Amino acid sequence: MAALSNQACAALERSIRERVPPLLTDLYQFTMAYAYWRAGRHNEPAVFELFFRDNPFGGGFSLFSGLHDCLLFLRNFQFLDEDLEYLRSVLPPATDPAFFMFLRELDCSSVTLRSVPEGTVVFARVPLMEVSGPLAVIQLLETSLLCLVNYASLVCSNAARFRLAAGSRRKLLEMGLRRAQGPDGGLTASRYTYVGGFDLTSNVQAGFLYGIPVAGTIAHSYVTSFSSLEEVFPQTLVTANGDHDRIDLISLTKGWLGRVCELLGAEPEKIHEGELASFLSYAIAYPHNFLPVIDSYSVTCSGLLNFCAVALSLFELGYRPLGIRLDSGDLCRQSVEVRHVFKLCSERFCIPAFRSLTIVGTNNISEHSMAELNTKENEIDVVGVGTHLVTCTRQPSLGCVYKLVEVRGSPRMKFSEDPEKSTVPGRKAVYRMLDTEGHPFLDLLCLWEEPAPEAGVAVKCHPVVGDQNCQSITPAQVACLRLDVFTEGQITHTLCSAAETREKVQHSIQTLDPRHKKLEEPDSYTVAVSEKLHDLIAKMRKDSSNASNFLLAN
Amino acid sequence: MAALSNQACAALERSIRERVPPLLTDLYQFTMAYAYWRAGRHNEPAVFELFFRDNPFGGGFSLFSGLHDCLLFLRNFQFLDEDLEYLRSVLPPATDPAFFMFLRELDCSSVTLRSVPEGTVVFARVPLMEVSGPLAVIQLLETSLLCLVNYASLVCSNAARFRLAAGSRRKLLEMGLRRAQGPDGGLTASRYTYVGGFDLTSNVQAGFLYGIPVAGTIAHSYVTSFSSLEEVFPQTLVTANGDHDRIDLISLTKGWLGRVCELLGAEPEKIHEGELASFLSYAIAYPHNFLPVIDSYSVTCSGLLNFCAVALSLFELGYRPLGIRLDSGDLCRQSVEVRHVFKLCSERFCIPAFRSLTIVGTNNISEHSMAELNTKENEIDVVGVGTHLVTCTRQPSLGCVYKLVEVRGSPRMKFSEDPEKSTVPGRKAVYRMLDTEGHPFLDLLCLWEEPAPEAGVAVKCHPVVGDQNCQSITPAQVACLRLDVFTEGQITHTLCSAAETREKVQHSIQTLDPRHKKLEEPDSYTVAVSEKLHDLIAKMRKDSSNASNFLLAN
Repeated sequence: MAALSNQACAALERSIRERVPPLLTDLYQFTMAYAYWRAGRHNEPAVFELFFRDNPFGGGFSLFSGLHDCLLFLRNFQFLDEDLEYLRSVLPPATDPAFFMFLRELDCSSVTLRSVPEGTVVFARVPLMEVSGPLAVIQLLETSLLCLVNYASLVCSNAARFRLAAGSRRKLLEMGLRRAQGPDGGLTASRYTYVGGFDLTSNVQAGFLYGIPVAGTIAHSYVTSFSSLEEVFPQTLVTANGDHDRIDLISLTKGWLGRVCELLGAEPEKIHEGELASFLSYAIAYPHNFLPVIDSYSVTCSGLLNFCAVALSLFELGYRPLGIRLDSGDLCRQSVEVRHVFKLCSERFCIPAFRSLTIVGTNNISEHSMAELNTKENEIDVVGVGTHLVTCTRQPSLGCVYKLVEVRGSPRMKFSEDPEKSTVPGRKAVYRMLDTEGHPFLDLLCLWEEPAPEAGVAVKCHPVVGDQNCQSITPAQVACLRLDVFTEGQITHTLCSAAETREKVQHSIQTLDPRHKKLEEPDSYTVAVSEKLHDLIAKMRKDSSNASNFLLAN
Repeated sequence: MAALSNQACAALERSIRERVPPLLTDLYQFTMAYAYWRAGRHNEPAVFELFFRDNPFGGGFSLFSGLHDCLLFLRNFQFLDEDLEYLRSVLPPATDPAFFMFLRELDCSSVTLRSVPEGTVVFARVPLMEVSGPLAVIQLLETSLLCLVNYASLVCSNAARFRLAAGSRRKLLEMGLRRAQGPDGGLTASRYTYVGGFDLTSNVQAGFLYGIPVAGTIAHSYVTSFSSLEEVFPQTLVTANGDHDRIDLISLTKGWLGRVCELLGAEPEKIHEGELASFLSYAIAYPHNFLPVIDSYSVTCSGLLNFCAVALSLFELGYRPLGIRLDSGDLCRQSVEVRHVFKLCSERFCIPAFRSLTIVGTNNISEHSMAELNTKENEIDVVGVGTHLVTCTRQPSLGCVYKLVEVRGSPRMKFSEDPEKSTVPGRKAVYRMLDTEGHPFLDLLCLWEEPAPEAGVAVKCHPVVGDQNCQSITPAQVACLRLDVFTEGQITHTLCSAAETREKVQHSIQTLDPRHKKLEEPDSYTVAVSEKLHDLIAKMRKDSSNASNFLLAN
């Protein structure tokens, strides 16, 4: 597990203030905070909940991510004079100047955050975070918390689906930086796709900041920058064990190329000299790390032959070349052809390791094409994914929301013209019910003050969506889903490295019943409310439509 | 036009190093740079081009954005010791230590950038940026430049489409921060949707950094945080001209509410007291800025009545309330109902301005639903757009690429297993041909050394995609599409504010023939290559498949 350097830790902490200043929020948070303050309500104790309404990508689950940054954000939340100066210029002129003094003194020392731990499998409609504290302060936190959780959870969930589609054998490389929503979007993508189950990233800064293993060798531009063998310099290489003089790698490789062409019945005159020059030059620079992209001209007529020749030379000198990358065309078909050639070379030239060289595939891979790798014949060992992974093409937003559920100990509920936009009122406890095999089968939302459900004891509940019929369930185990992670200005939960959270993710996914993990049409997981909470909802609905007499009073 | 504060300018410059450090790139840029350096090729003069292959969203054009940040990035490009320390740990052990000394000294003083100006209408396959300089240096810039241009151009183009769909009359508010790819994704979205034609953003930090007008009033949480009129404090308001004692706004509004209910035949007992309390409290805090969200309970049974009562009180006291926001349900239908009530109140209570209060609609607006506003009856004045705008749901990546086209004065071309992934070789000049009405009708890619086409003179060219038949065109005007914007480490082009670029965008879109601006199935715009460039491509294709004799030489 890669540990973070102190420099990287400091950079993370420092960057939170740069990345998520308290002005990075919607203006209405300030106008509301002002109206609360003006009415003397800003310190009223209140509770917000953060959740999403539908599992993403048509799937049966999501992964909760982004908590780490939320905690750093809360710890560093404070307005600078320049923030307030700008706010003065955009808030209505009626704003009392004393409000800015109030903001200047604000921090999160009165805020408490209870949260699902980072990297946990979660489901739609379960309140993942509960933010409690002074009404005006926790209102101001809304947009930033949503911004930090939304994409992190979405892209982590997307990565987990790619991982499920790929199976555990293949290595997965994230390479989406150039297609993400700008620099920070790219960093967030690299971080949380690793957490979600990818093995490697191409993003060097993500390696630096989060300790993620980085990978990469050459692009087409490197190959096409060469036109002739005269550009290869130096032209010699010592053997791997260093006990020979420098060997002329060009001559050696020309010999191997002749033999490879003979073996495969290939036409030497179709081979691209510049490509061979680029492979040689890279092999001389990094003889232990030789993995070129072989489709800059033609895989079968040029790239594969040039690779084999250089790789055979490297083997002869005692090095172990790594493999090749395919970046266009039908990756499955080509990988089979490439492996076939590797096997022929392995047998003809008596190099057992040659047959098992790595084949990397990178060409607009989607979740669908990843899943196809399990049904179509192919020899791809490592898959690089960019655009579809980081932009979450199939559903580019998770749609997290942040809803008020309690003020001054009294529950709050939003009704709506869209029924599914109504909220579940009251401060809650959230329990995860496990069956006898240890699989979670139901998440139960209870009122905070209710006794916790007990293992082996039947409990009545009502599914939060769909038909609202009461059901009775008996859990084999009960787990409390959320923990106190931030209290009195302090982070009270260990901050995990990306690698640690990645392990948690895999563990959390493993506990899930396969029927909820199906990528298409999974069985839906039940999220339910307790009888008491169900009664509260019914009462609030009734009250809301009941006679309101305030017009007649005095 | 909003000017930027010095603080904001300094923050932008400072943040580039934080946001786009030179490590924010793919690892293979470093392994390639090393291989070039090792072979002594790192200072060879080379040229890369940045372009995209298809116009986004099935449309006929795109907008070029992100140049401003690219320029700041180039000016600040430099490795720190901590960057190099990390690089040492991830590059193969074979890396010569002297390479890190080379990196330590690197900057962009030898790099030249020719670019389409920011905010210009552009088309697929036109090289938007030409980066020339030492091979290793400009290779290292690839990912960062792509990352800065890709999303900026995509979201700017998306905003321009929303603007075209909305027509020029409606105000458009961007409010996608919480759904973007993290904090910086959100900032980039706010900035470039404004550039693309939006009027306002909810994102305060975007206002601070880029001078974008910000907007926002209250959310549902504010409304649902109130439960009774007892929570309204203070309960009084002075008149707008200040020449009266404080008026009891609650009593005044109750009176108005009775009259409104009578006028509309509404049932007073269905009115939500907490909602009225929230409206009153906000109106007391910001009597000049009253624009509540009215669907927290029921628009017609509660929210609209409460709004009218408070707004009528404000009018009575000499204030000018702004309007209402609808955030769920059928926005068009509701807006018509709301306007109808506004008109009734306007007539009954003799307040002409009441009929023209603003109606804001915000509920998961897509380009499609925006376009529907032109076909369905509605009274929506301002539209707020979040998710679909910032995530570019319909196509979340532009797919810009960065391709090598020349080394040491000699053209380079990538062939590919996918024909559309082949590149157009050689250093180029790019001309935009205008017809007699001033509409652009063709972009022509020529070899750098060719004489520029002249107005009124026929020129032969070959479309770069589709059938390659030669055609002859005669432009009424010829414009050079790209400018030198960065030379010898210096930015040589004026950096525009977001507002200035926004004006350029509107101007550039206006020059475009409407047939290219259709949102669906637009006429495709022709991008063509000159005869000389066409000949070069043919020659390079022929050479590539020609006999290669290097195996036989010596």
